[in-house]
Amino acid sequence: MNNEKNKTDITVSKSALSQKESYAALLSGNREWVDSKLKEDPEYFKTLAKGQSPEVLWIGCADSRVPANQVTGTNPGEVFVHRNIANVCVHTDMNMLSVLDYAVNVLKVKHVIVAGHYGCGGVAAALTNKQFGLIDNWLRHIKDVYRMHAHELDRISDQEAKVNRLVELNVIEQSYNLCKTTIIQNAWKERSDLEVHGWIVDINTGLIKDLKVSNNDSHSLGYVYEFNDDEVAVH
Amino acid sequence: MNNEKNKTDITVSKSALSQKESYAALLSGNREWVDSKLKEDPEYFKTLAKGQSPEVLWIGCADSRVPANQVTGTNPGEVFVHRNIANVCVHTDMNMLSVLDYAVNVLKVKHVIVAGHYGCGGVAAALTNKQFGLIDNWLRHIKDVYRMHAHELDRISDQEAKVNRLVELNVIEQSYNLCKTTIIQNAWKERSDLEVHGWIVDINTGLIKDLKVSNNDSHSLGYVYEFNDDEVAVH
Amino acid sequence: MNNEKNKTDITVSKSALSQKESYAALLSGNREWVDSKLKEDPEYFKTLAKGQSPEVLWIGCADSRVPANQVTGTNPGEVFVHRNIANVCVHTDMNMLSVLDYAVNVLKVKHVIVAGHYGCGGVAAALTNKQFGLIDNWLRHIKDVYRMHAHELDRISDQEAKVNRLVELNVIEQSYNLCKTTIIQNAWKERSDLEVHGWIVDINTGLIKDLKVSNNDSHSLGYVYEFNDDEVAVH
Amino acid sequence: MNNEKNKTDITVSKSALSQKESYAALLSGNREWVDSKLKEDPEYFKTLAKGQSPEVLWIGCADSRVPANQVTGTNPGEVFVHRNIANVCVHTDMNMLSVLDYAVNVLKVKHVIVAGHYGCGGVAAALTNKQFGLIDNWLRHIKDVYRMHAHELDRISDQEAKVNRLVELNVIEQSYNLCKTTIIQNAWKERSDLEVHGWIVDINTGLIKDLKVSNNDSHSLGYVYEFNDDEVAVH
Repeated sequence: MNNEKNKTDITVSKSALSQKESYAALLSGNREWVDSKLKEDPEYFKTLAKGQSPEVLWIGCADSRVPANQVTGTNPGEVFVHRNIANVCVHTDMNMLSVLDYAVNVLKVKHVIVAGHYGCGGVAAALTNKQFGLIDNWLRHIKDVYRMHAHELDRISDQEAKVNRLVELNVIEQSYNLCKTTIIQNAWKERSDLEVHGWIVDINTGLIKDLKVSNNDSHSLGYVYEFNDDEVAVH
Repeated sequence: MNNEKNKTDITVSKSALSQKESYAALLSGNREWVDSKLKEDPEYFKTLAKGQSPEVLWIGCADSRVPANQVTGTNPGEVFVHRNIANVCVHTDMNMLSVLDYAVNVLKVKHVIVAGHYGCGGVAAALTNKQFGLIDNWLRHIKDVYRMHAHELDRISDQEAKVNRLVELNVIEQSYNLCKTTIIQNAWKERSDLEVHGWIVDINTGLIKDLKVSNNDSHSLGYVYEFNDDEVAVH
Repeated sequence: MNNEKNKTDITVSKSALSQKESYAALLSGNREWVDSKLKEDPEYFKTLAKGQSPEVLWIGCADSRVPANQVTGTNPGEVFVHRNIANVCVHTDMNMLSVLDYAVNVLKVKHVIVAGHYGCGGVAAALTNKQFGLIDNWLRHIKDVYRMHAHELDRISDQEAKVNRLVELNVIEQSYNLCKTTIIQNAWKERSDLEVHGWIVDINTGLIKDLKVSNNDSHSLGYVYEFNDDEVAVH
Repeated sequence: MNNEKNKTDITVSKSALSQKESYAALLSGNREWVDSKLKEDPEYFKTLAKGQSPEVLWIGCADSRVPANQVTGTNPGEVFVHRNIANVCVHTDMNMLSVLDYAVNVLKVKHVIVAGHYGCGGVAAALTNKQFGLIDNWLRHIKDVYRMHAHELDRISDQEAKVNRLVELNVIEQSYNLCKTTIIQNAWKERSDLEVHGWIVDINTGLIKDLKVSNNDSHSLGYVYEFNDDEVAVH
């Protein structure tokens, strides 16, 4: 997220549109997309309608500049997507956990990717002492990432560099949060083709930076986080 | 969502890829996208990096076949996005509420769109008596939509038609859920350029169906839901 | 809950206490309780420390006037307790669900009681059009109970009677919400000694009113809510 | 919580009761309580029904052995209560936050107490590598407390002592979690009579141990956690 209103051509032209026109533009954009797809392949939507079998779950930021498919050059049908403010994975968030459960246990995705991006407004906000409203409760989870890595972050004097390092650390921690769920760990016991990755989209270049924190087993999660019981303790 | 593994060319070819290859394909897809964008406009990412000022918040399904930008023919930077299982808007879901708060109060989006899609696997699952795991708790919110509209739905004998009508009713109820939040209602008191819409993506044709339930004020919300106090009652 | 500051002896005397004194009173109250218990039974706490095996889970209101143990004349060790604003049971609330899971699956309680009370401030607030802050999101779940029973409630002209009927309907709906969880339904498949009840504490008399909505099987839950599959659909 | 079924007189006698009898016992216990109260003061319930004005919010464990009123020797009407598994205060938990919001902003309580207890089964479970079901997601928040204090905890070899130290650290962290909310910090800006405390109930003696971590201002919360803006940043 980044709330500085930019003054580029794109948005200037858009701002010129009235409420009604901007709405109509979305619907005409839809028709143009449909037309272009049908021109390429008259059976395109019939094929798509048969079902989905994506191999990737993308958990990314709601920021308008980082759509999963464009960034990865993938087509509709290829990436199952959850996006929230600053790609946070909260242990008790039924919204995210339901997406994860469905993707891992029903769709059997092979790759779960937590994708952050440099210049993330949510992360930047979490580094301030300002209140932004109800969202402050959500940003607290990022403030906790700062706390755990304050020793490193406090030595970075440049504010932009500090935000960007926290963006990275946030992705790393959130990807570990996923690994620590029973959803992921139980899937690892059943199959070997599931990996959890941490990525940054460098919004200045468009390029993905793989943070090289991929996991495909529970062994590195550390004491208390690895579930090593053969069976569930109760039930 | 739709968990029937399809047997189309797309997925067959993909399935042929190993774990490593499918991962590498995402990264090469990224580089190709960056190259194509830079070819069009060498300043593309520099412009994008300046900030976002989207006019639209899209709350849609995590289903891989309904990415917000493709469906609306919009570019990165134009649509702020939240996606979860079956585009459910739960009153006490801090994940969704944080997205809504940021989009409405910081980004000042003009359009909030709840976008469902025919053939939604989550909605179909909610119409069954089967258990799917932790996600059952999430699907309960859709079962409640069924309950409120059982009189209509029970008269539809065709199962696919029934699911698709529930897809519509779910979008309508979720868009009303947004309207009933203090976030939306307080914004309406401050500005007239905010609308909440309900859409269906017809996955068989790619076309958007506007359910014509757009709201831009609190008057039709009904008793107990409209906040009509001039000031907050306490604090 | 009820936020009318009463002017009774109890609170007047308490208000006279300074910040420090009211705190000290809690600690001295603790010592007096310990002394009285040890006088009755010198082994009281040693026995208590051995573990708990409560047969009852109480899900009640946070209101200070309806503590589970006093109201039921039970001792420490006999009732496992969750209390929140207006005893609401939200499908995706991990706080409540974790309590329910532990009580049902680990402690094997025999009775789960949703206990509301007449004059509930949370329910009364939900019947208004006023904003109270972040809590409005929580109260939305009660507004939905109103909506489902508006036909009945709208015919009650007396406001206090209306609130009290909504208190009852809220308890009934929340007790059904528990019955509709997989936690309760799966336990019912395993054992016959688990019941879910709905109660009102009539704060004017202190007496419990059993709403006679007790359930000990899934059969009356209605279409879509009863999980009748022998096995979990996936996993 | 503690799931070791004890073999004391209390539970043995109770186990002898049938499903029906144990239920009837709760209702007869209620009538006895009402009778005893009316004997002391015929106006007792009329007074109570006038409203509540508690000065204390108790956030404690659901464990049946630590009811707020008995432990503090307080009467109905004196303590507003939230109880969950292991008295965890999650940043984005609307259940707990709604209780806190109401207690602080409507009831204007003077003391918010996070009350843990030695021998807490939830904390003990979090220190293991076992799965317990849906509740594992909740216990993750306690595992994170362990992580932040692993340096200290790992040096404790005795398991009971380790659990009990984590019980203390959990209370301390959860009380800080409350202090870090905007609810508490904004209240502190308005009034000086609000304190947040951390307590342990020593279940072996019944006595409260004040952990001496009381807070009544934001100054010690540390960088990023203290909201020091005079006004809200946006809106």
